[in-house]
Order: sequence, then structure tokens, then C-alpha cells
Amino acid sequence: MIRINAHYQKLEADYLFADIARRVDAFRSRHPERDIIRMGIGDVVHALPAACIAAFRRAVDEMASDEHFRGYGPVQGYDFLREAIARHDFQARGAEVGADEIFVSDGAKCDIGSIQELFAGDIRIALPDPVYPVYADTNVMAGRTGAASDGRYQGLVYLDCDAANGYLPRLPDEPVDLVYLCFPNNPTGATITHEQLRQWVDYARDTGALILFDAAYEAFIRDERLPRSIYEVPGAREVAIEFRSFSKTAGFTGVRCAYTVVPRKCMARDPEGVPVPLRELWHRRQATRSNGVAYPVQRAAEAVYSADGRQQVQALIDGYHANADGIRRSLREMGLAFSGGEHSPYVWVDSARDSWEFFDLLLYEAGVVCTPGAGFGRCGRRHVRLSAFNGAANVGTAMTRMAAVLAGRGA
Amino acid sequence: MIRINAHYQKLEADYLFADIARRVDAFRSRHPERDIIRMGIGDVVHALPAACIAAFRRAVDEMASDEHFRGYGPVQGYDFLREAIARHDFQARGAEVGADEIFVSDGAKCDIGSIQELFAGDIRIALPDPVYPVYADTNVMAGRTGAASDGRYQGLVYLDCDAANGYLPRLPDEPVDLVYLCFPNNPTGATITHEQLRQWVDYARDTGALILFDAAYEAFIRDERLPRSIYEVPGAREVAIEFRSFSKTAGFTGVRCAYTVVPRKCMARDPEGVPVPLRELWHRRQATRSNGVAYPVQRAAEAVYSADGRQQVQALIDGYHANADGIRRSLREMGLAFSGGEHSPYVWVDSARDSWEFFDLLLYEAGVVCTPGAGFGRCGRRHVRLSAFNGAANVGTAMTRMAAVLAGRGA
Repeated sequence: MIRINAHYQKLEADYLFADIARRVDAFRSRHPERDIIRMGIGDVVHALPAACIAAFRRAVDEMASDEHFRGYGPVQGYDFLREAIARHDFQARGAEVGADEIFVSDGAKCDIGSIQELFAGDIRIALPDPVYPVYADTNVMAGRTGAASDGRYQGLVYLDCDAANGYLPRLPDEPVDLVYLCFPNNPTGATITHEQLRQWVDYARDTGALILFDAAYEAFIRDERLPRSIYEVPGAREVAIEFRSFSKTAGFTGVRCAYTVVPRKCMARDPEGVPVPLRELWHRRQATRSNGVAYPVQRAAEAVYSADGRQQVQALIDGYHANADGIRRSLREMGLAFSGGEHSPYVWVDSARDSWEFFDLLLYEAGVVCTPGAGFGRCGRRHVRLSAFNGAANVGTAMTRMAAVLAGRGA
Repeated sequence: MIRINAHYQKLEADYLFADIARRVDAFRSRHPERDIIRMGIGDVVHALPAACIAAFRRAVDEMASDEHFRGYGPVQGYDFLREAIARHDFQARGAEVGADEIFVSDGAKCDIGSIQELFAGDIRIALPDPVYPVYADTNVMAGRTGAASDGRYQGLVYLDCDAANGYLPRLPDEPVDLVYLCFPNNPTGATITHEQLRQWVDYARDTGALILFDAAYEAFIRDERLPRSIYEVPGAREVAIEFRSFSKTAGFTGVRCAYTVVPRKCMARDPEGVPVPLRELWHRRQATRSNGVAYPVQRAAEAVYSADGRQQVQALIDGYHANADGIRRSLREMGLAFSGGEHSPYVWVDSARDSWEFFDLLLYEAGVVCTPGAGFGRCGRRHVRLSAFNGAANVGTAMTRMAAVLAGRGA
């Protein structure tokens, strides 16, 4: 008799964004005449950079002839892409990362969800709250937690992030083996300084913990003094795995390309206490579970690092920054407290009421979709996330409508 | 202290094809002057069908304008592709499969490796021997087996396939909950009739087992009486999940697109014995772990079902069939026993000696790479797999060289 993985039954409701989509669909079917502006899910809206399109086209053309056709690619991704990544994203910033430590994949979400497979079933896990739901959900599905209770899973160590601590998680005050960090943060938009990040690296080195560093939004950092990679901090190579994506940088959400860095010296212990290189485990995992990323997609990603590509990507980021600046200005005018939006596409708004209630208010009264903070954890229950991933005109309209609704309601 | 998933340490050596690649690399560095013909790994060599290229290009062009740009796609894949699949691959053959039961992904290997996550940790698993290594390895990594011993993992039920039973696995004679089947088979090339497949479906219905049906090679079936899908067998919808791929059909190994069918009525039990639809579990898994497949790739896959696309795909298959026919002719002339190659790109050759020894002989004496049967299981230890995925001239040369070597050796 085939039986299910019963850990799935511990998951709370649906995956957050699927849940939002369903609520929006319900609204649309009841109000088909209403115009909706999506300020919720972090999906980009602008065309791919021209350099990426040109490279993408050329690679598709290669697949049209027997002579240039490429079948299965290398497990870790093509050298041309991994070398460009290592050079531009790391070595140019003084971070020691080699091409052989980079694993190209079809999404940071996939990698962040899969990485937990490398670890023992009974490790202790710390993660911030609010947090990207995938960190917790994938560990729930893998059986590393107890049941959910009041928005939290038993067995996980939650690190509260709120206005009082500037949305920076404290070091855990109980022993943990694995820590998820995300900077610039999703959903709060918070950043971390070199010195603050060094405290985490030192903590991991002192305790033997491993840091999973989600840097999917590093391209939004405007202050050159802030670290873009955890490997800018000395000693991080031994204790951190980093996740990056082309999704938010170059608009690859519908193209699917990302990468994970597993340094050669990054180790975990086997049951006898012997250090095992995590790079080898991840290589074995990827070789067994995947056949890599489409060749044309890898060529498109490589073009992100060309001179034209870098300029075009910066123009995209500048546009989203301008949107975020507009959102922040409007929120100030509305008198709403918020954080983020400076080095991040996300603005984390204090909704001063239940976040799903605020979500419904914005959807039904303003036709604006936000992301309810409750979906990111208990600390998000009175916040919503606004995303700058939209056209400038839409952002302006959305903020005008939101201001009108909140004024009318006396918010 | 971070600790590894110690189940990885049970895995035997490396992933088969990585192991082969390493041996070939070693040979190349010692004999850089020697020409190598790869008759091993099942990778296609011909250009994508022109219809797919045209659709691929058009979709890339869409991504070049804000107006037509597409970001994150639907979790299950775009409707246009899922509807084409349901209509052409199933409904046209009388198999009841709806578009909402299809999940598009970036590879059958990924799906076959991930599907085990839906099931309890202590289910009993049966799989054929020889077998695609991913079936066993992914369950080893998930902790469902004991240690390896003489080429087999403790706790798995192996179903021997050899010349005596026509490479058709027997029904298990001990209770199992999950059965992996693959027809046309990789590596043996064996096929299964409607009546034989019905016995498996009846077995699953009688015992409450679930069948994972790998149909990645269905396009190679030449006899219209053979089933291409398990859903052509009445009653299969309740007890089977099917995996398909565009890799071997339309040459998508370097493009990455596949799909999995999870019928609405296909159930597994929760700990209380309550039936749970596996489609919902898989949807939740995919929504949490993936962001789907590149939009341009899905458009390229859709074109497989156009009139031109179908004709062009058939021409590819015909070419590989002609290669397989040539391989079979040559093997007969060499006096070697074999199976497969008729409804499959693979020919399973009785090497009459240790398969790695035969691999080395062919590599070093003939410059021909085959796949040693030992990599597929204990029953493959005196076999090698030859693949028809090559240019016709290469296949001819490889077989001539092989014949010369075996004649000289008195094989």
C-alpha cells in the first residue's frame, strides 16, 4: 500500500504566492471590470536586456545545425558562464571564488530548496522571521520539524526581525547547525554591513554551523560599502554557501538561470566526525537529480557580463530603484512606517492591522495586489511587502489609489 | 556542528555517466591523437527540428519587448503546452489524460528523482535490474535503503531481467508499495505488450502499490500494437504516474523540457489510511521547489506537436532507427547476442565478459565508448549498452572498428 510523506500534512495552507494568485483570481471573477495592479509577487516586467536577447538568439541558431548543436551540458554548467560569474561577481570584488565552485541551475529557489538534502535529518535550523517561505517549507517537507503552531513550526529556531532591531536577526542564543540568511532581505529590504556579516561568519566558525546566504537581490545594493557576497568576509569560504540568481538582476524570471557557490573548503561532518566537502556532495546530488540548464539560456546569462549587458542590467535596476523611491515617497506622504526599498526592490510596510485584512482592503478598494506579511512569518503579521517590480506608471497609479483608500478610511 | 546526510555515503562510486566521462578523459589525455566515437551515453546529435527552432526564436523575440515579455510562468507549465500534450500524446490514442494532470518540467530525470519525496520513508520499493541508476540512487540518498552489497542496496526489491525472461520483470513475489517500470526499456530496449502491462496495472490495483512508469523512449516504438502510455491500459489512472521527455523524441537534451502525468484519481494513503490525491502533493512540491521551465523552451516544445514538427521529429527518429538497425546487423555478423534496438535507441549486447573490461577493450582498441552494463545493476555485468544516438557515418565506423577488434581478439 503506497503511503504519503506525511510531513507534507504539516504544511500550513498553500504556498504563499499560489494562495495570493487564487485570491486575486476570485476577485477578478467577481469584478471582471476592475483593473488590477500587481505590487505583490516579485516578478520583473521589463524586456530582457538586448545583449541577452542577442546571445539567446545566436545560441538558438546554433541548435539549428548538426555542426553546432549541443546536447547534455556539463553538470555544473558551461565553463564560459561559470568563468564569467567567478570573474565579475566575485574576483572583481576581491572575493576568492573559482569557476569550479560555481553550480549553474535553473533557479535559486530550486537550489535553496534542494540544499537541505545534503544534511542530516536531525540538524537544528535557525531562520529569520519574516522569511522567504521556501526555507521553512522545504525543511518541513523533509521532516525536520514538528507540527505548525501559531504560524511557526516546532523544532525550528526563529530569529525575530522587527523595527526594534532594524530587521537584523540576532545571533542564536541556543545551539544551531544551519542558518539561513538573506541580504538584501526578502521581504524586509534590510541590508547587512561587512562588520555585521563578519559576526555571523565568526559565529559559524566558532560553533561549526553552516550559513546559507541568499544573495538573490545583491544587484540592488547602491552603497558600495555594503557586501554583495558573503565571501567578501574573510573566513566565509569554510562556513557558507551562497545563492545567486539572474532573475531579479537581469529579468530572468521567465528564462530560469541562477547559480550556487559551494567553496572547496566548505565542510560538514559525517557521523564519525570526519569533514566531508559539501561541494562533492552537491556535485553528486546535481549529477543524479538534474541535467543542467538549457544551453541557449546559459549563453543569455553569459551576456549579462558583457559590457553592453552590464550597462543594460544597470538600467533595469535603476528603473526599479526609481520605482522603489517613488513608493517610499508616497508611503511617507501617507504617514505609513516602512523599511527597505533603498538597496532592495522590496518595501516592507507597517500595515498597522492584520496583513491579510490589509491585503483584502488594497485588493478590493484600490485594485492593488500586495504580499501579506503573514505569509513570511509571525513577525510579518502587521506588515505587507510592496514590490518595485512594475512599470513606473503602474507604480504611480497604485500609490495614488492606495493613498486615496487609506485617506478615505482614515488610515 | 553541521552534519551531512550520511545516506550519501552508501552510494556506490560515482554517477555512472560521470564515471564514464572520467575514464574517457583519461584515455584522451594519454592518447590525444586517437579519434573517439561515443556510442555510450544516450545523447542526441542532430539539430533541433526546424519547427522547434522557429518557435524558440519567436518566443525569444517576445522576451525582447516589454509588451510581450513573460516572467514567472504557471507552476504546472503553460496551458498551450499542456493542452497540446494531452491532445496528441494521450487523447489521440484513447488514453484519458487531461491538461490539468500534466506537469511540465526541465527533465524527466529531475521528476523521476524528485517523485520519491512524496512518499513515506519506509515504503518498500521494487525496481528492475538492469535499471537506470537514478531510480535506486535517489532512494538511497533519501535514506530508503541499507548499505550496498555486491552491486545491490539492502532493502530494495530487485526484479531480474535477462535473456531467459525476455528482459521483462516478473511481478514481485514479496509485498512492495512502489514499482519502477521503464518501457521501451533503458538499458535493454525491451518493450511490453498491452496484456503484459495490464498484469502490472492489475497487480497495483490488487495490492495498493503505485507504478512509476518511465516512458521517455515511447517515440521509438514502431509497432502500433504496443502501448506508448500506461494510461492506454484501463484502470491505470488510479495506480500510475508517467514520465515523458522531449529529450530523446525531439532532441531536447540540451534544451531541457519534459513532463510528468499525475492523474486526479491517483492516490496514496496518509498515516490514518485516508486516500490523498498525489496530484495535489506533487503540485505543492513543484510550487515550493521550482519556478518552472523557460517560456521560450515551452514554446519550442509546443512546436513538436505542429504538423511540421511531428514530421521532423519522425525524421529524427527514423534516422536513429536506421542506426539501430545497422548496429543490430553488425552485431549479428559479429556473432554477438543482443536484445533491443527495434523499438528503442538502445541495443543491449551480451559482452560475454565483464562489462567494464569490455568497455576498456572497446575504448582502448577501437576508440569506441559504450556504456558498461554493470552501471545498470548486477544483471548487467556481462552486457554493454550501445546507443543509436549518433551520426550514421559514426555508427558505421564504430561497428567496423568493433568488428575488427573482436575478430582480432577471437571474440
